[in-house]
Amino acid sequence: MALSKAKLKYIRALELKKFRKTEGVFLAEGPKLVGDLLGHFPCQLLAATTEWLQAHPHLQAGEVVCVSTEELARASLLRTPQQVLAVFRQPEEEPDFDMPIHALCLALDDVQDPGNLGTIVRLADWFGIEHLFCSHGTADVYSPKAIQATMGGIARVQVHYVNLSQFIQNITMKGCPIYGTFLDGKPLYEVPLTQNGLIVMGNEGNGISAEIERLVTDKLYIPSYPPLRETSESLNVAIATAVVCAEFRRRALEL
Amino acid sequence: MALSKAKLKYIRALELKKFRKTEGVFLAEGPKLVGDLLGHFPCQLLAATTEWLQAHPHLQAGEVVCVSTEELARASLLRTPQQVLAVFRQPEEEPDFDMPIHALCLALDDVQDPGNLGTIVRLADWFGIEHLFCSHGTADVYSPKAIQATMGGIARVQVHYVNLSQFIQNITMKGCPIYGTFLDGKPLYEVPLTQNGLIVMGNEGNGISAEIERLVTDKLYIPSYPPLRETSESLNVAIATAVVCAEFRRRALEL
Repeated sequence: MALSKAKLKYIRALELKKFRKTEGVFLAEGPKLVGDLLGHFPCQLLAATTEWLQAHPHLQAGEVVCVSTEELARASLLRTPQQVLAVFRQPEEEPDFDMPIHALCLALDDVQDPGNLGTIVRLADWFGIEHLFCSHGTADVYSPKAIQATMGGIARVQVHYVNLSQFIQNITMKGCPIYGTFLDGKPLYEVPLTQNGLIVMGNEGNGISAEIERLVTDKLYIPSYPPLRETSESLNVAIATAVVCAEFRRRALEL
Repeated sequence: MALSKAKLKYIRALELKKFRKTEGVFLAEGPKLVGDLLGHFPCQLLAATTEWLQAHPHLQAGEVVCVSTEELARASLLRTPQQVLAVFRQPEEEPDFDMPIHALCLALDDVQDPGNLGTIVRLADWFGIEHLFCSHGTADVYSPKAIQATMGGIARVQVHYVNLSQFIQNITMKGCPIYGTFLDGKPLYEVPLTQNGLIVMGNEGNGISAEIERLVTDKLYIPSYPPLRETSESLNVAIATAVVCAEFRRRALEL
């Protein structure tokens, strides 16, 4: 059984956010990633080579298509297609908006690059952060590029798109700490850090917006080295997120 | 004066490693990056819009060409061209191979993705690491994608391509500590860290090669959270590099 023209068109259209949203699905590629996501998200369509299918006899998928390497290459959005691709349903969990009061959570204020977004989901998974709240201006986590960069982290980290300002206002009223990184923040290593609260990270070019900045209760700064060096430089947003999350969890390990 | 067909072809050919190497040059784009690099590397050719050129009257460049936005778009390798692009000479510094004995340095063992490589240069700059030693199998730091990702860090971090195994053998014989991250390493926060030595980071898929692993004197592990969680996961190489470098420098600040 081969991939029909209509299916090929369908898969390739998943590069478009609008189409993904209407259909409520996303695309994942490669044996590691697809393997990780099967069982976590309902699989609507799976296309794979004979070898991969023979190694996975008990598949739960709406439809399974056996394809040649050439066919897979035609459907794939990757430069080097890898044995299998699958279309999964997007989860539709209602977020618990009070979550940051109880557990450490992340928020993104208009992060633009899907690669950065996916990398942040991956590292959130590593550091046991299970909820990521994104402003509506943030990239779509279900874009193929973001999904690939999560390396399976999307199965364990819930991503919610929210009105970020309203969401933060609600939890600050309940006494929840809001952390954010700023060039004029206090050195990360000198600030008391809690194991609950919200860590807000900003846009690649502009950082955290003025509207959100007003809601931040604890401004952090990742010290560059040597100290007091004059610098107009900055860190990539995923890199900064990792350094901050690692420090929060280091404190927890020290307790 | 417009961009000749030959120059357009020349610029676009800088996407090819072989051509960059023969010519000994690299391409950088955008006002922030080009501004940072002017004065650090000899500029051979600069193409910019009238507005940009009027704002920069005292340029030191072999050749300056005023271009329309359309012409710039034709020459640019970026999706959204930005006012200026420039061709710089690659530096030809002979590395001091004993450097890690005196200062904290980084080494990459076959890192493949130019985006990761550029991001690592950028964070090395932030953490005051001035030398990055790359195996010959590592991506080319002068590829346009890597250069853009350095965000100017390439002006302050020297990148050297070496026979990594020989290079490390030479410094270990002189008692230099060699750090590396492994899933079976010791928790980062429990290992004494020096402010000299070499931090080796491995390939995206395979980590550090067996040959280099034998030369590592201190195996580190970035603790995931919660501790003792079963995980088959990993961190992106640039993310892992950042967490390790931040921890080395945190220790220095604590002294």
